[in-house]
Amino acid sequence: MIETIDINCDMGESFGNYKLGNDEAIMPYISSCNIACGFHAGDPLVISRTMEHAIRTKVAIGAHPSYPDLQGFGRRSMQLSAPELEAFIIYQVSAILGMAKALGGKVSHVKPHGALYTDMASSEHISEIFVRSVIKTDPALSITGLAGSATESVAKEAGVEFRAEFFADRNYDNEGRLVSRKAENAVLESPQIIAQRVLNFLTSGKIKSVHEEMVTINARTICIHGDHAQSLAIAKAIHTTLDEAGIRISYT
Amino acid sequence: MIETIDINCDMGESFGNYKLGNDEAIMPYISSCNIACGFHAGDPLVISRTMEHAIRTKVAIGAHPSYPDLQGFGRRSMQLSAPELEAFIIYQVSAILGMAKALGGKVSHVKPHGALYTDMASSEHISEIFVRSVIKTDPALSITGLAGSATESVAKEAGVEFRAEFFADRNYDNEGRLVSRKAENAVLESPQIIAQRVLNFLTSGKIKSVHEEMVTINARTICIHGDHAQSLAIAKAIHTTLDEAGIRISYT
Amino acid sequence: MIETIDINCDMGESFGNYKLGNDEAIMPYISSCNIACGFHAGDPLVISRTMEHAIRTKVAIGAHPSYPDLQGFGRRSMQLSAPELEAFIIYQVSAILGMAKALGGKVSHVKPHGALYTDMASSEHISEIFVRSVIKTDPALSITGLAGSATESVAKEAGVEFRAEFFADRNYDNEGRLVSRKAENAVLESPQIIAQRVLNFLTSGKIKSVHEEMVTINARTICIHGDHAQSLAIAKAIHTTLDEAGIRISYT
Amino acid sequence: MIETIDINCDMGESFGNYKLGNDEAIMPYISSCNIACGFHAGDPLVISRTMEHAIRTKVAIGAHPSYPDLQGFGRRSMQLSAPELEAFIIYQVSAILGMAKALGGKVSHVKPHGALYTDMASSEHISEIFVRSVIKTDPALSITGLAGSATESVAKEAGVEFRAEFFADRNYDNEGRLVSRKAENAVLESPQIIAQRVLNFLTSGKIKSVHEEMVTINARTICIHGDHAQSLAIAKAIHTTLDEAGIRISYT
Repeated sequence: MIETIDINCDMGESFGNYKLGNDEAIMPYISSCNIACGFHAGDPLVISRTMEHAIRTKVAIGAHPSYPDLQGFGRRSMQLSAPELEAFIIYQVSAILGMAKALGGKVSHVKPHGALYTDMASSEHISEIFVRSVIKTDPALSITGLAGSATESVAKEAGVEFRAEFFADRNYDNEGRLVSRKAENAVLESPQIIAQRVLNFLTSGKIKSVHEEMVTINARTICIHGDHAQSLAIAKAIHTTLDEAGIRISYT
Repeated sequence: MIETIDINCDMGESFGNYKLGNDEAIMPYISSCNIACGFHAGDPLVISRTMEHAIRTKVAIGAHPSYPDLQGFGRRSMQLSAPELEAFIIYQVSAILGMAKALGGKVSHVKPHGALYTDMASSEHISEIFVRSVIKTDPALSITGLAGSATESVAKEAGVEFRAEFFADRNYDNEGRLVSRKAENAVLESPQIIAQRVLNFLTSGKIKSVHEEMVTINARTICIHGDHAQSLAIAKAIHTTLDEAGIRISYT
Repeated sequence: MIETIDINCDMGESFGNYKLGNDEAIMPYISSCNIACGFHAGDPLVISRTMEHAIRTKVAIGAHPSYPDLQGFGRRSMQLSAPELEAFIIYQVSAILGMAKALGGKVSHVKPHGALYTDMASSEHISEIFVRSVIKTDPALSITGLAGSATESVAKEAGVEFRAEFFADRNYDNEGRLVSRKAENAVLESPQIIAQRVLNFLTSGKIKSVHEEMVTINARTICIHGDHAQSLAIAKAIHTTLDEAGIRISYT
Repeated sequence: MIETIDINCDMGESFGNYKLGNDEAIMPYISSCNIACGFHAGDPLVISRTMEHAIRTKVAIGAHPSYPDLQGFGRRSMQLSAPELEAFIIYQVSAILGMAKALGGKVSHVKPHGALYTDMASSEHISEIFVRSVIKTDPALSITGLAGSATESVAKEAGVEFRAEFFADRNYDNEGRLVSRKAENAVLESPQIIAQRVLNFLTSGKIKSVHEEMVTINARTICIHGDHAQSLAIAKAIHTTLDEAGIRISYT
């Protein structure tokens, strides 16, 4: 039985006049956040404000780099050459590292965003570029990615601490892979169902797939989303459910 | 008589498929470069390539942050709030710092670009935001700016090392201010005349203004431009002229 | 006593994954909309969707061009050369004209956005560039701008139909100028007060300034904002109040 | 034996301070140009200047729309939904149509750029979206694309005039497909060889593939590139060679 679990959430995804997510409200219910670096979302002021909240509420800070595509929110796969992708990762993570330092905080992990996350999950080649870039930027950083993915094996092979994650509100197939967002049943929406699912996962290490099979997921952090109508309700429901079960939400 | 002088040049101003300047050719003739940070020019791959050249040729690396305006090349004044400008500066300088570190180099100085440079020269308020941002990012960084400007007084007041600069190819008025780029005689073009002017400045501390008066400029670095047809010829002419006069080009 | 009045609202200001405003909900309560052209907000899909709504609900379509500044939402003044600004206006308005035509609609007017709107209000020079650009694009287009502004005099001088506008939720000074957005009392928020103010204006042609004086405003269209929490409530309150007073909301 | 041939060249690919290509010098040697629309290259002022040159030199104007990717110059494939891609095409082509009209010119054709061009060549689905978008914008426009491609069959099926093109400086395989740009021998560089190849093609309808076979290409326009060091020399060599052979360069 797990006694402590990290709950992470993507944050800092506003841009200029555009507000996205509900960062301030959700911050008290999570233990780590992944801050957009300005390439799919976020601008320097948004990043700075988000970090200040995270530091104040003692939420661990992660960098959340992406392919360069603001209009597409980093959700379109893009083919970058290896040196190009490496430079884009180092640039983004470095900006976040430096901003955290300037604000008196520190960055603990890096989590790829959107299409980059998905491409890495199935590609050792792209995972290798990413992992190498993170090591070059700061070898003490850990990497968050999909449990059981190419990212996991590549990161571990390279000696980087890997934080396998489980998505609280996403459905999985029998092989433990995410059901595509294009499918109708990709995303769960009921806060109670999601919270119970997280608790089941934490007590058993298993989740029920869309095909109604129990599937083992090896994950040490749980991702919740911050940009849905139900995000805050989900964060609260998980918090309450885990609290009642005696499980502490903390970055470890 | 000065024995050693720093010659700086803006670099890394290409973007994607767009090539600007002649960085590789000019690098051997200068002692420091100011690398665009991606907001008026430069992208992560361009930054990375430029740094590699600088490290290889032992040219000191500076960050060259700007207002966010790629289409206008950072040459239009833009009103950002103080927290916004601060965040934009810290972000850009941090990205450059981290990329240099990842490549085994280090950043020695920061020089504002374009309209930000000009706005700072006459505004203590904007200079204060900039200087404070640089200190928060890394207090060991020095700041390059216009000799005799508000930037100089604010930086010194804050205890930051200031590198006053003289523009080799720009005309000055009797008060030691740059003649506006909009004026016809703003820019000198003959490599020989520019090189001789630099030598005169180094031996006398004075330059001849557009009004034919000798004006004292207190500068410790000389800026040359890299994006003109004559840039390489100018760099070579200065190098040859100083070499013959026994003056060494070196970052000090 | 006015029997019919146009109510206009800026729309289509979402971008990619970012949603702004409440276009669908507000559309039934207005008679014309000003659609962002992609330079301060809006992307082609957003423009297309917004036009489809406008066509379906018989709301007149306007183009809402801006300085090129997505991060600043077009709210920062930017100095563009005359040929540059002209080209930027023609490009944006042309894109909107063509998209409307492709969807079976048509564009009736053009309204500058943000800092461009404000700069034009006080500058004959910028107004001249704008008016000339609109005429070159389509001389049948009318121009919406601040009542009593340089834009009004320049447009009328050029023989372009001018639609002077009154801001339902903004305070004015004794000279009939907008109170700066930076002032605390710049914006009214109570739907009932705003609706009553609009009715008073329509029956008397006057509004009460922040200095408690009655000031005459010559306006033929009323602007409401779509991106506030209260926007929909304001739109409904005005609609109800005018309906009860027997005033029809219609583009004329 | 062909008596008249159209030679087209991509133009207007500069952006802000970035200059690309040699448009003014090449313009006299071609009969049509494809003008970047601002999404992979070009900004409104660049578009305007390029059109003025084209109108002055009686070069037919085409729109050259792209995926939205300035940093990648439109050379990365991007997955847009059908409504999104349609809106992006209509927006870009409309902007070009309106700008040409404002300058007293007209647009005759549309040619997709970069990755969009390549994706369309092999995809009926993407070609259908593109062709439908062009028809909605202006059914009188013709479409330029790869000879023998999906684009050709889809355009013809839809009743749109199709201008099949042959690349003067690109190698082909035995099936008449372009050798990938990633291959070493993808691009020919000698102006004399290229000019002779064009003449051979015009007299025989065939070209020699990389595998030394004669392959028939059904094309009515020849594309030359404007952004290589040799571009002007190639344009001149083709012009001279065709002139001596009595073949007129003209948009037909």
